[in-house]
Formats: sequence, C-alpha cells, structure tokens
Amino acid sequence: MTAGPSGDAAWTYARAGVDRGPTAEALSGLLSAVRYRAPGSSGRPVRAVGHYAGLVRIGRETLAVTTDTVGTKVLLAASRDRWEEVGTDLVAVNVNDLASVGARPIGLVDTLLCDRVDAARFARIGTGIDRGLRESRCSLLGGETAVVPDVVRGMDLGGTAIGYFPGRRPVLGRSIRPGDRLLGFPSSGLHANGFTLVRKLIEARGVDLDTRRPGAAIALGEELLAPTRIYVGLTEALAGVAGVTGLAHVSGGGVRNLVRLRADVRFELDGWPRPEGLFGWLMELGPVAPTEMYQTFNMGIGFVVVARPTALPAIRRRLARTPFASHAEVGRVLRGRGVALPGLHLEYDGYA
Amino acid sequence: MTAGPSGDAAWTYARAGVDRGPTAEALSGLLSAVRYRAPGSSGRPVRAVGHYAGLVRIGRETLAVTTDTVGTKVLLAASRDRWEEVGTDLVAVNVNDLASVGARPIGLVDTLLCDRVDAARFARIGTGIDRGLRESRCSLLGGETAVVPDVVRGMDLGGTAIGYFPGRRPVLGRSIRPGDRLLGFPSSGLHANGFTLVRKLIEARGVDLDTRRPGAAIALGEELLAPTRIYVGLTEALAGVAGVTGLAHVSGGGVRNLVRLRADVRFELDGWPRPEGLFGWLMELGPVAPTEMYQTFNMGIGFVVVARPTALPAIRRRLARTPFASHAEVGRVLRGRGVALPGLHLEYDGYA
Repeated sequence: MTAGPSGDAAWTYARAGVDRGPTAEALSGLLSAVRYRAPGSSGRPVRAVGHYAGLVRIGRETLAVTTDTVGTKVLLAASRDRWEEVGTDLVAVNVNDLASVGARPIGLVDTLLCDRVDAARFARIGTGIDRGLRESRCSLLGGETAVVPDVVRGMDLGGTAIGYFPGRRPVLGRSIRPGDRLLGFPSSGLHANGFTLVRKLIEARGVDLDTRRPGAAIALGEELLAPTRIYVGLTEALAGVAGVTGLAHVSGGGVRNLVRLRADVRFELDGWPRPEGLFGWLMELGPVAPTEMYQTFNMGIGFVVVARPTALPAIRRRLARTPFASHAEVGRVLRGRGVALPGLHLEYDGYA
Repeated sequence: MTAGPSGDAAWTYARAGVDRGPTAEALSGLLSAVRYRAPGSSGRPVRAVGHYAGLVRIGRETLAVTTDTVGTKVLLAASRDRWEEVGTDLVAVNVNDLASVGARPIGLVDTLLCDRVDAARFARIGTGIDRGLRESRCSLLGGETAVVPDVVRGMDLGGTAIGYFPGRRPVLGRSIRPGDRLLGFPSSGLHANGFTLVRKLIEARGVDLDTRRPGAAIALGEELLAPTRIYVGLTEALAGVAGVTGLAHVSGGGVRNLVRLRADVRFELDGWPRPEGLFGWLMELGPVAPTEMYQTFNMGIGFVVVARPTALPAIRRRLARTPFASHAEVGRVLRGRGVALPGLHLEYDGYA
C-alpha cells in the first residue's frame, strides 16, 4: 500500500479508513478462541474454511448459511434519500454468497439498525427487499429492527441467508485444476463494495453526484447506487452441469476472492476487463492504483464460473436463453498460486 | 406512557429514546411491501407470524431461523472494557429464541460491526462466544466483520442462529388453552434487554458502577453485565414431553412476550416475582413505573414453559437433576386476552 494520510498520493482502502490486515488478524484471534465443536446430534459442519458460506449437514440435507451487510453504501443512499436499491442489495449480497457454493436460497432474515425510525424509508427498503427476494426466489423468514441511536449513525442493513442443495452437491472449488477456464459475468456497477473508498474520493475531489461522468447516461448518484446484480438464476441454470468446478461472487476483496475457491492454483485473468466506464473514471479520479482497484472493486465482472474446457459448450447451451447469455472467458487456471492480471502486471497472494 | 423529555417524572423507554409504537408501525410498512412468496421448491415457510423464529420446511426437515443483536448492552461493556459477557449474550439472545419454538440449535453466524479493530477485545468476544456455543451445543458456521467507523460508534454485536427439530415438532403455543400453567425459570439478571433505559437512568442519577447496590455481592457494573442465561438445556430436556404447549424467552418486551405464543387467551401472572433485587433497585432509582418495568425487563424470570396441569409431574421429573430444577409456577392461562399481573394491577394487550 502506498500513500500517507493526506496529499495527492494515490488513494487506498487503508487511507480511506479500512485496513484489511489488522482486521483479518483480530478476526483470526476471535476464531481461535472459539474452540467448541458441537456433537453430531447438533448437525455436522462441513469443512470449507474461508469460503463464502458455512455448510452443515443435518439428516439428509446440507444447509448453507451466509451473513453480510450492505456496508457504507447505505451512507450514499441516505445522502440521496434513495432506499430501494440498498434494500435489494441486502438480499443480493447474501444470496450471491449462497450462489457461490451452488446453494439454492431458502430464506433470509434481515437486520435493520437505525438511529431513528422513518416509516417512508422503511417501506422503500421493503420494496427493494421484495425485488431481491423475487429475483432469487427466496422467502423472508424474519428479521430484527433495532433503534439504537447511541450505536448507529443513520442505518445499517444486514442479513443472513440460508440455502440448500436439492438434488445436487455443494460446489466448493476443490476439484479446480490447471487447465480450467474462468467465465466472467457482468456486474451491474459497484455492487455494494468499496463504498468507504468511493465516498472519500468523491468528498475529497468535490464531485457533484447530480452530474454525469463522461460517457454515462445517468447521474453519478444513481449510477453508484445501482443495486447489486443477483446471480442465483445463473447458478440455478448451471446446477448439475458436469465440469463446473468453482463459483465465485466478486465482492469485497475484488479478484482476490478467487483464492477462496482454491489457494494452491494460479488464477490467470488474461481476459478480465481493463478499468473502463465507472471503474476507469474512479481510478483516474483518485488516483487509485490498479492494484488497489482490482482488490477493492469487481471491475465489471460480478461473478465467475470456473469450469473444465469440455464443459463450456454445455454451459453455453444452458445459458443461451437466460439473462446470463452474455459472458466472456476472462481467464484460466494455471499451476502456481494466487491471482494475476498479466496485462497490468498485478499479482495477489491471498484473499484477506 | 407518562413523562416528558426531562424532569423527575417516571422514566419510560420512550423517554430513553426508544419508542416502540412508531418502530412497530414502520416495520409493518416494510413487511407489507414484501409481497413475494417463493415457490415450494425453495422451501415451504410455516406460518408463525410474530413468533420467536421463522420456520421453513425443506424435504423432511423443518428449520428455525432467528436473528437478534446484543443491543446497547455493548455500550456498557465498552465503558467497563469487559467483552466476554456480551460475546456469550450474542449466542444466548439467538439460541434462546430458537428454544422458544422448541428447536435444537445447529449453527450460528455472528456479525461484528465496529469503528476500529482491537485484537484483544475480539479475542475476548471469541471466548464469550465459545462459552455460549458450548452451553447451547451449537457450532459457529461463519460470520461477518465490518469496520465501519462512519456508521457505528463502538461496536454492534449481532447474530443469526438456525435450528431444527430432530424427532419432535415445533412448539408454537397453538394448543395453549385456559387451565394451562406457567412455569417460570430464573434469569441471570437483566440479560441483554432494557439497556438503553438502564444506561440513561445510571447517567441521570450519577450512579458509580464500581459500587454495589444494597444487598448485592458484586459491583453494579458486573451485575449489569452478567451474561444472558441460556435455556437450550431446558427445552432439550423437555423435548417430546406431552402437554408442553408453549415456550417463551422473556426478552425485550418483558412479560408481553407471552402474547407471541397465543393472542386469544389471557396469561394471568399471579406468581411472577415482585420487583426485587436489581429490578427493585432500578425501579426506585428511576423511578420507573411498574407498567414500564414489566414490559422492558424480565423481572427475574427469563424463560416460561406453558403446560397442561397433568404434564407438571413429568416436567418436574425431567428437570430434577438439571440446572433447571429450580423453577416456580408463576401464572396460569385464563379465558380472555393479553397479560395481567393482578397483584400489581397491570394489564397489557399485545406484544409490540
């Protein structure tokens, strides 16, 4: 990481206030304090450390559980007084993580923390949640609303989703091997990641969110708030296709997310898009170094499917008449470790 | 509710900054915007509106899902720099809600929101979580840690728990009828409810948390932080006992929680403890009106089992050599509606 606390040096996530290293370390301290292993009568956890969802087997079923928040995108939503988008994000960030282990969503619970209650805002969040549930065919099973003005400024939107594996097995990336190909599926923009950095950049550069960036059809405020694309339809369409070896939601951590699937191969992203559109504009605005861009944002690809070359025709056929027909080969699996973008001379070791 | 925004009039939760009415209204606006009903292939939700957990059937299994946070008890923990207790609370508030539908916990995911990372604090929270998991025989399946200094002051600790029903059915209170008895099980103190009010009282009255209240063996700071008792061992011991008709965690909302089991009977609490010990002291400190005390705190009873009179001997036998042997008959079910404490002339209609 470059850049000090001020000045015109390149912007990083650490400079924006979020340093991944110490967080990962503290978290591993927490996890090492949790030593208890429940007896089999309480379900059998399936080992998938660092993956997108926790897995547990009860009776004949395997369940997937995942939890995530919309993060500081909510602050942008508040500044624009737009709430539907982040309602959809609340669903999307969770069901996309279920999609990353190949699970079908069953249900979601939401957690709304706020400093005050605003009925109109809540109703719009509800409309956004409804849209997300509809797209992921998921039920709302409950939730928690806490008015905690001493803890939260504005709002925090989080949720937990559970899923299962009807007539299929979890896809965890274990069978990924050199030679596999990476198919990239377009994102709908920033999704719900990197907003701590984006907000600081916009503030530092005095950007007016009511204006458009060059080449954009809508105002920046709206472009930035576009709800996270939901990839459940994609993974449902591919369920059971032989030769699909890995699934990855490109969320916080950017392309590094691929390492969560398998750490002992090399993901060579020779076809990943160059910084363009909104991403290119943000990179220049900072400036933000390419290494930081690709480990913070999805850079245009929100979901990756890893597959054997022999599986590609079947995948193409399955997706032909779906909203996921548009995709591209963005890379391949090699011997080695980590993630590389050879055209940009970028290399990443791990995920955190 | 009595009391204006200042002065020596009685304290209420609304005066402390949390007004239940508008929150319930806004929430119902959100829920009415969520119209989508997923197809059966995504699981079949079981109707249990307003209950402690959402229920969904997949294949041969019924799952229970519940989500809750530790709330503003975390602020007290921060002021004392004690973190194990609230770690245990994070597990307890969720698994006790699972216990309230008769589910056995399978797994928990935690959500830690914080304004900065502190490794020592995280490790102590982990130790507390471990204790809670051990006592409820539950696995940690995952979690989310977000460093969001622009949203959260200090920390927020939340979680989601899932459970199932091995060889048993959910206990939802539907078969509760006049004549049933209420057994009350002691709480371990305030648990994790009412802290917004407690903190305001303590601040307003200038109470020193290093001192003891009359009759207490430990300093107030520690007494207030005592972790929530976990009732999973109780409901596991009673699983399958015929004539157990309802289970209720006495959490936020106090005795009103009973209405969640069944709204068309009357819960007459003629044996519920009078305000004593810590609760009596808080009531005098405010002063807080009895009506507010009983709808905010557990008042000494953290969990209630509703049962047919004929089931009481079997229940006593099952609990004889467990930590739940100590309990008392605290009330009974009558024709009518709501919850009443006749000795204190208190009447409540509903839950919210």
